[in-house]
Amino acid sequence: MIKDIIDKKRVGKELSKEELTEIFNGYLKGTVKDYQMSSLLMAICIQGMSFDEILNLTDIFLKSGEELHYEEEFGIMCDKHSTGGIGDKTTLVIVPIVASLGIPVIKMSGRGLGYTGGTIDKLESIPGYRTDLTDKEIEESIKKVGAVMTGQTKDIAPMDKMIYALRDVTATVSSIPLIAVSIMSKKLALGASKILLDVKYGSGALVSTKEDAEELAELMKKIGEKYGREVRYILSDMNTPLGKTVGNSLEVVEAIEVLRGEEQGKFKNLCITLASNMISMVKNIPVEEAKLLAENSIKTGSAYKKFLEIVKNQGGDISKLKVSSKKYEYKSSKQGEIKKIDALEIGKLSLSLGAGRERKEDKIDYTVGIVLNKFLGDKVNIGDTLMTLYTKDDKFKINSNIFEIE
Amino acid sequence: MIKDIIDKKRVGKELSKEELTEIFNGYLKGTVKDYQMSSLLMAICIQGMSFDEILNLTDIFLKSGEELHYEEEFGIMCDKHSTGGIGDKTTLVIVPIVASLGIPVIKMSGRGLGYTGGTIDKLESIPGYRTDLTDKEIEESIKKVGAVMTGQTKDIAPMDKMIYALRDVTATVSSIPLIAVSIMSKKLALGASKILLDVKYGSGALVSTKEDAEELAELMKKIGEKYGREVRYILSDMNTPLGKTVGNSLEVVEAIEVLRGEEQGKFKNLCITLASNMISMVKNIPVEEAKLLAENSIKTGSAYKKFLEIVKNQGGDISKLKVSSKKYEYKSSKQGEIKKIDALEIGKLSLSLGAGRERKEDKIDYTVGIVLNKFLGDKVNIGDTLMTLYTKDDKFKINSNIFEIE
Repeated sequence: MIKDIIDKKRVGKELSKEELTEIFNGYLKGTVKDYQMSSLLMAICIQGMSFDEILNLTDIFLKSGEELHYEEEFGIMCDKHSTGGIGDKTTLVIVPIVASLGIPVIKMSGRGLGYTGGTIDKLESIPGYRTDLTDKEIEESIKKVGAVMTGQTKDIAPMDKMIYALRDVTATVSSIPLIAVSIMSKKLALGASKILLDVKYGSGALVSTKEDAEELAELMKKIGEKYGREVRYILSDMNTPLGKTVGNSLEVVEAIEVLRGEEQGKFKNLCITLASNMISMVKNIPVEEAKLLAENSIKTGSAYKKFLEIVKNQGGDISKLKVSSKKYEYKSSKQGEIKKIDALEIGKLSLSLGAGRERKEDKIDYTVGIVLNKFLGDKVNIGDTLMTLYTKDDKFKINSNIFEIE
Repeated sequence: MIKDIIDKKRVGKELSKEELTEIFNGYLKGTVKDYQMSSLLMAICIQGMSFDEILNLTDIFLKSGEELHYEEEFGIMCDKHSTGGIGDKTTLVIVPIVASLGIPVIKMSGRGLGYTGGTIDKLESIPGYRTDLTDKEIEESIKKVGAVMTGQTKDIAPMDKMIYALRDVTATVSSIPLIAVSIMSKKLALGASKILLDVKYGSGALVSTKEDAEELAELMKKIGEKYGREVRYILSDMNTPLGKTVGNSLEVVEAIEVLRGEEQGKFKNLCITLASNMISMVKNIPVEEAKLLAENSIKTGSAYKKFLEIVKNQGGDISKLKVSSKKYEYKSSKQGEIKKIDALEIGKLSLSLGAGRERKEDKIDYTVGIVLNKFLGDKVNIGDTLMTLYTKDDKFKINSNIFEIE
């Protein structure tokens, strides 16, 4: 009985594969109710899951939908996943770098919800850019330009979608085993034999400490390895927004600057680290060697050239990229050094400007967002511009805690 | 936000009265969903609640409905509550005993659900007996015969009804704080200043160990005292069914036998203990003295006379009480001593015979049930009748684990 399964987890016992299948597949079919599933999810959040349970649940999620097999046609590929962050536009930079080295890349991304943006939304800020390529178009694109950045084509792990929506409203998101199952079931379904994980920690991330990020990363690596995939991970800080921009068109502009070699700093370094690891895994070469290739791809202009090819192939025109002409400069009322720029608060501000969605059905304004003018460790005077808001109207609220200046 | 409140309990923090009010009253109004409440309830089950939280939640439950004030008219009264068990027909015996001593008793009971029977169902097995007395009829009855045994008249703690229905299907029943809040909010609403609790432990009870029963009882006592009520409790074993009968009419017959002084043993002793404590609290006399009064009430026939008065006053006619004529004798296949008679299994068997409800809307057959022919510690031979089933048809299954004979 369903009640008995929930009760077993309530007291911290291990559920068998049969029990997990009964309750999760029952939920997919509608015989197990929302209120029963949320009760189980809370019990899992508090009592945890054994590695066997995690593996079994990953398998149930994975088998709930279709699995892709592009490697059969195109050879070894590497997929990359970021656990999400404020201002994270790494995909836009690393896909062209990797593809410019002759490695095929099929990157399927999602839309943003809440404080974090989605790569698909960022790409759609490029007028004309199509993120709904068909299977056939993906195959043709790989043959033609070597890479795509698009939305999901098939019904990938639909169980995850249902469970995630429920977790989101029942305070059951913060569970390392559930996060690992959610991410890995999708990554495994997408079929790449090499997987690179960018696991964030901090105020704008799913987990807040580096220790938790590492636990999550190690767990995902172990899951992937059980399925014969090579998994590497990077732990990256998300207490501070990534790069200088937050907002769709603005982030595309920043990605272009990095690809053109015009922009250095932390964000560019993270892109190089991620791209190097992808290249290293697919080419089976040391990361240091791969890093030279990645850096060189930017220097010679081939990464940017590849970016333009990918965008053009998917119908986009970057010359039409628009940023709102209405600007607001937020100035410092204090003198001192910037000790903190709160990523979560920047995310909330960006959402309030209209750059994100509070609900799935909300529309995004691609032209609004935030550009940071000062960074962690910078010395500022009273009246210095800390950030510039690109806005639609004057209906925004700036939390004075965003910048900590001492 | 609701999510933040659930999250706070997920990590084991204390919720404020405002937070508890927001989420529970939101649930009553429908703005908080079933799946959010069940998630919170599971977090409470695992993380527990502080005494302040328990008091605050009791108050929220209590205030969700009406409160009765019969003592203003009839003076000090004692209410009795049993946490439920298999074959528990104590109310039918103790109300007449207490009332026969001139103490007014208004006993409002509920219907049975699942394995445990309800006093209201047992009373309704007496043809003609009305359990839906109005307020006015209750007052007239007290003046006329000094006692009523009826259903609830007012909307008592409707929050508890909603929450209990959800707990029942989400494996969140087993929480000592939630059980205490559920019972005490109703008892407090009924208004008696003296409260006697019969807290059961064992296979047929809400809690399985004596230690848990004591923890629950002490907690309820503390809650009651905070509201200025005098609370006493009895811890009683529910590993074995109470008395010799399970099933509605059969239990009424057994209660009558006890009231007539024809039946001795554990069940009768429990009734005397409970009645003595009620008498002791209302009359403010030592329990030993009250016990003599209770025993005497049976011996002199005044308890049984009071029972007949109460039944007649509510329209019942015990001469029309019916028991099924179809019998099945379950015989022992072993020789030895009876080491165990499993209360929960007897409850399940009784339910399968039709004496209980699986769902609220199910109809009860008052005439069916079980009579135990042998008891704990009895020596039996192969072929001895262990129990007699009073049945409607042959569609019942007897679990061979009910009796443990060695």
